[in-house]
This record gives sequence, structure tokens and C-alpha cells, in this order.
Amino acid sequence: MSNLRYEALKMHKENQGKLGVYSKVPVRDANDLSLAYSPGVAEPCLDIHEDESKVYDYTMKGNLVAVVSNGTAVLGLGNIGPKAAMPVMEGKALLFKSFAGVDAFPICLNTTDPDKIVEVVKLLEPTFGGVNLEDIAAPQCFEIEDRLRKECDIPIFHDDQHGTAIVTAAGLINALKLANKKIEDIRVVANGAGAAGVAIVKLLLRMGVKDVILCDTKGIIYKGRPVGMNKFKEEMANITNNEQKQGTLADALVGADVFVGVSAAVAVNKEMVRSMKQNPIIFAMANPVPEIMPIEAKEAGALVVGTGRSDFPNQVNNVLAFPGIFRGALNVHAKEINEEMKLAAVYAIAGLISTEDLHADYVIPDPFDRRVAAHVASAVATAAMETGVSQKTVNVEEMKEHLLASAGEKQPVFG
Amino acid sequence: MSNLRYEALKMHKENQGKLGVYSKVPVRDANDLSLAYSPGVAEPCLDIHEDESKVYDYTMKGNLVAVVSNGTAVLGLGNIGPKAAMPVMEGKALLFKSFAGVDAFPICLNTTDPDKIVEVVKLLEPTFGGVNLEDIAAPQCFEIEDRLRKECDIPIFHDDQHGTAIVTAAGLINALKLANKKIEDIRVVANGAGAAGVAIVKLLLRMGVKDVILCDTKGIIYKGRPVGMNKFKEEMANITNNEQKQGTLADALVGADVFVGVSAAVAVNKEMVRSMKQNPIIFAMANPVPEIMPIEAKEAGALVVGTGRSDFPNQVNNVLAFPGIFRGALNVHAKEINEEMKLAAVYAIAGLISTEDLHADYVIPDPFDRRVAAHVASAVATAAMETGVSQKTVNVEEMKEHLLASAGEKQPVFG
Repeated sequence: MSNLRYEALKMHKENQGKLGVYSKVPVRDANDLSLAYSPGVAEPCLDIHEDESKVYDYTMKGNLVAVVSNGTAVLGLGNIGPKAAMPVMEGKALLFKSFAGVDAFPICLNTTDPDKIVEVVKLLEPTFGGVNLEDIAAPQCFEIEDRLRKECDIPIFHDDQHGTAIVTAAGLINALKLANKKIEDIRVVANGAGAAGVAIVKLLLRMGVKDVILCDTKGIIYKGRPVGMNKFKEEMANITNNEQKQGTLADALVGADVFVGVSAAVAVNKEMVRSMKQNPIIFAMANPVPEIMPIEAKEAGALVVGTGRSDFPNQVNNVLAFPGIFRGALNVHAKEINEEMKLAAVYAIAGLISTEDLHADYVIPDPFDRRVAAHVASAVATAAMETGVSQKTVNVEEMKEHLLASAGEKQPVFG
Repeated sequence: MSNLRYEALKMHKENQGKLGVYSKVPVRDANDLSLAYSPGVAEPCLDIHEDESKVYDYTMKGNLVAVVSNGTAVLGLGNIGPKAAMPVMEGKALLFKSFAGVDAFPICLNTTDPDKIVEVVKLLEPTFGGVNLEDIAAPQCFEIEDRLRKECDIPIFHDDQHGTAIVTAAGLINALKLANKKIEDIRVVANGAGAAGVAIVKLLLRMGVKDVILCDTKGIIYKGRPVGMNKFKEEMANITNNEQKQGTLADALVGADVFVGVSAAVAVNKEMVRSMKQNPIIFAMANPVPEIMPIEAKEAGALVVGTGRSDFPNQVNNVLAFPGIFRGALNVHAKEINEEMKLAAVYAIAGLISTEDLHADYVIPDPFDRRVAAHVASAVATAAMETGVSQKTVNVEEMKEHLLASAGEKQPVFG
């Protein structure tokens, strides 16, 4: 047994999981009971019954996110089902708590039917202040998120899509500064048309990228491609690939400025990097083995290389985004996480690296940079208030100060 | 504003509810992350995927109970809906944690449709080790519990029914010792045909009571009564009221040994108590005003009086039952909470009062008696193992010692 396997199993078993529930108030005697339970508990119940918005004041809802999965696309493990997905969802909840003080709770559902997932989440809406969809297979995840966003009054966020897209986009902004290229001039080639790939492409288009080619295992996606298409890929074909090119990933990369890999394959070689424009930017996020190893990409002339791994520079780690995004959304009782809030997160993350500090191995902040969640949350809360999806107004500077003070001195971990 | 109202609202608001989620493991650096999340988390996932029973070892499921409600019958407040029910469900979860170390979590559902509640709970089954149904209106609650018990492989327990029944039955056992009456000889009159009333009657019949009359607001329930019946009351008419009497609650009480009130009315007067057999036993559990005040009942000759209130002796408080019952069920990975386990809880609670200590004002243990959860859990775990519904064998004596040691010195509160 490897050391990591041994340590991971031991840690999970000794603690019977990683997450627990605790009481914020004491229950030592009849007086405590009379406040926390009968008869005193009737008072907040009655107030909420009269004014439903008070549920944010008197209950845990206002700080509570459901981490919802059915275990159909877990990490690199694939469709392992809802029980086997539990350790990942508990882990995700842990990150919410540790990085932004958000109470999060795993909800692993025994179904692969998108209709049922939508229904359950809607029925759970009174309990939670937000929902993070996690590790649900594409293309079902797109439909589930779209419907829930329309039908719920709380933020719905599919992290595998938007978290990855936001952090990648932040890294790209900084990398383009080093390459001295403008976002509207670049060609981006993305490989992988799953949750992350689709979301990255859409976000980059909104940010001003004009030339994107999306590839999957069958090569370049174009309108009417005879194999391996579905309605989501048809949609992508319509909004990308201006010249409606056909061919392989290698064909697509010729003359491209940026490669974004969110596939599961070693898809890129040195030759392909050499075929790109000058100062290529490579985000090779396949896990655990990137589409091309950073050293090879650099040898082939890459200016900046990012991966999904913590043992290489420029780790695209979603923990830079989702804790702060939900912290900001919850603090203003946001009804949704809209595009402006996502863009605010992108620029907040990118902006944490000053012009002086910026270099090829530091275009993305460290996941344990304690400033991240506070800056992201403040930017997201501001965007929510400016776009009218907040239900509460906060002083953002005070909020940022408070969050910075709450985070640990050297790391963002909240008590 | 009353002092209780002020204090209760203040406490709920200052803490933004009463419940939080905490991390059982540290997340301080990349190494911690690699164990709790990617890549180490894949190890318990893979093990659970191979052997689903390991979800109890590696995740919070084994110590986790969902407190499920739709807010249709909350305390004395009635149908206030799922958001307004949140403070009660958080409070209930708090009691699970404080009294037995069980992690419990509120699940407030936005539906009054029994089919949907059944469906949601079944879909949530991978996440939770047990389900406590709470404050769901009768008669829907009966159908929901029945179906879930059949269709789920985790314990399903409707506390408003069985918790109340178990504690009442425990008090009755001890009261009968004082009255020197045998359970098979007594006549019990119960008032209130909701969740608690129906469950109490069924439990007493199983314990050997042979003569029970159940009343509701329309008087005695008998076969074919023309008003206010439903299929559940018809079932009750079939198993109670041996002589198929008709009439009022007052008529029913003439010559009865025991009155059990779980109604919402001041339904009993001194005259009615005087009409009962010698040494009447009265459990008047309407809240906040009992069916008859203890002092009046005593003046009319009652030997033992219990109520639902903490400011009178013999409080029928469900917290004596549900924390220990779930503690015991979870510890042996029970697939259900069967009748034998409920009876074991009854006798465990009753047995905590020794013959020497037993007196008219002490037939039910104090809710803060720190022995209760340990004794109930041990008895319930034993019954589960003996009846073959456990999936894990434990040493019950060790378990009891451990639970007693974990509970606070003077109260049962768990860390």
C-alpha cells in the first residue's frame, strides 16, 4: 500500500469522515433548552412565518451551501455512484469551511435522472442558502444547472464548469500581460468538451476572446460534424471556430496563442507547441498527468505553463474561486450567481498578483494565499449588488477587512 | 416583548441559527489538502465503490441523521411551512448532538405531497445513516413513514409518533408499579388521534394493554362512526374499543385506569378524573396548557400526573428517547428501528428509576439525567443485534461505558 493510500484511509477511518455538525449555542440545562427548543424556538418560527426573508437571520440557511452530486463524474474516477462520492463531497464541504467560513454539506443523491436531481434540489431550497453542483456527468450537468438557475431563488453554481473556468481565465489574463498580447487578438484552442471545457470557452468569449476552437476526442468541433456530437456540442460549434475548420487538435494548434487542456489524455507534444504562435501559453489541466508536462512545454518554447497539480507552478485550483464566490453571494443574500459575479471573481483573482510580482511561474495565486477568499468575496458581493441580484446591502470594505481578519495569519483557514 | 421572546430572537440572530458544520481534520497546507481532498480522497472513494458498507467507516454517514420536515405540523404552531420550521429542525439536530453525539442535519422540504417526501428521502439515502421525520401533519405522516420503512435500508423514525409513545409508555410502567396494577388489567383512554395518539395506542397494545379507548374531538372512535373518520382512524377503531362504546371523552373515562392526553385542548376536568378507577394515572401532554393542570388532577385523586412541561414533575420529553435510540441504531449500522428496539428503549428509560427512588413525582427520568442516552443506546443496540437488523456487532457493555464517559459529568451534553 502506498504511503498516500495508507495515510488517506487512516485519516478518513479514524475520524469517521471529515465533517461534523456542531452546536453554536449551549444546551446545558432547562433554560438553554427553553431558548434553543421549546418553547422559545417558536419566536423565530413565527417571525419567519410572517416574513420569510428572516430565515437568513435566524437560521443556518444564510451560511449554508449544499454540495450536490450523484457521483457520475467524480474526480478522475468516473461514475462511482453516490456513496463512493461521499468522501469527495465531504472534502469539498471542508474546503468551503476552511477557506471561507461557509457551512457546506454533502448531498449525495441516488439517481442519474436529471429531472429527479432538479426536483430534489428545488424541494431542498428552503434549507440552503446556495447549491454547489459537483461531479455530475456532462451533458446532464448543463441541463440540470440551467433549469435550477431558472427555477430557484438561491445561487446555483456548477463548480466543475465555472470554478475551473474562472481560475483558468484569471491565469490567462496574467499570462497575456507577460506575452504582451491583447485578449481580443488571441486564438485559443481548448481540448475537452465536458463541463469545464464548455464553461471555459463561454467565459473566454464573454471576456472578449474572438477566436476559439474547441476540440474533443474526435478532433475539432464544427457545425454538422458527423460523429460524436450532441446538442451542447452543436451549440459550441455555433459560437466557436469562426472559420469552421476541420481536423485534429494538432491542426487546430497551428498558429494558436493559447492551449487550454481539460481532457483526460496526454494530447499535446513538443511539435504541437512549436507550431503555435510566439510565446505560447499552455494550461494543461488533465489530472494527474497533464496534456503535456511543463518541462516539455517550456522546452518547446511555452512562455507560461499552468496545470492542475500542486507540485508545479501556476496550479489551476478551484479553491481559489468557489469559497469566496459563495461567501460573497451569501453575504448579500444573492438570488443567483450571474455572469457579472463570475467575471468579478476572475479579475479579483488575477488582480492579486501585482505587476512587480508577476512572472511566468506566478500567474495564478497560491491556493493558500490568505487574501484570496476576502478579495473574491468582496468583488462578487459588489457585482451582485450592482446587478440587482442581492437582497441585502453590505459595506464591502468592512466585509473584506472582516474576512481578512478572520482568515488565519499564514493561510486562509477559518476557525 | 416578553423576556423569553427577546432572548430567543437575540440568541438565534446573534448566532445566525444554532447549528454549524465543522472540519474534523485540518486543512493548513498542501499536504493536508492531498489527504482530505485530491488526490488522497480517491482512496476511500475506491474502497467504498468496491464495498459499499465501507461508507460507514470512511464518511460521516455512519453518525449522521437527517431531520426531515415539511413544516406542516410544527410544535403548537401548526402548518407554518418549511422555512419557518427551520429553527425547530436545527434545534432538534442540536438535541441529537448534545444528548448523544449524533450529527444531525435539518432537511426542510418545500412540499406537502407525501409521494415527493418519500422520493426525496429515498434519493438522499446514500448520504445519511438514519432519518428522523419531524412535524409532518397526520395522517400523511403515517403513510410516509410506512413507505420509507419498507423502501429504505436505513432507520426511519417518526419522533412525534414513537418518541412520545416510548417515553409515555416508560412513565406508565413506573406509574403502574406505584398503583400496584398490572398492565394487562388496565383500561387506557387516550385523547387525540394524531401522530402521537395513534403511536401510543399501538405501543401500549403491544406491551400487553388489553383495553384501550381512543378519542378525538368528535368523541370516542368506533367502527363506522359517521363523522371525522379516515382510514387510519378506522384501523384504530378495529384494534381498540373492545366493547365498541360510543360517546364523549367523559363517557370513556368512567372506570378507566389511565388517561393519556395528546390533544390540543383543556379536555379533562376534576369530575372526569373522579369518575376514573381508584389511583388514576394521568398523562396530560397538551402544550403549553395540559388537558388538566397537575394540581387539579391531584385534588381529584390522581396518583401520578405527567405533562409535557419542564416546570412540572414527570415531563414526557422525547429527548429521553430519540438521541439514545439513534445512537444505538447507528452504532450497530441498523437497517431499521423495529418494534423490539422501541420496546427496549421503553424498558431502558423506565428502568433508570430504581424501586427505592420511584415515587409519584418521579416516574420519568429527568431529561438531563446523563445516564439516559447510554442506557437507551445500549438496550436498542442489543435489540437490533438480537433481531438481526444490525450490520455490525458491538460489545454493548463497552459501548455503554464509553457513552457514559463521553457524556458530561452533570448533564448528558456531548462535546
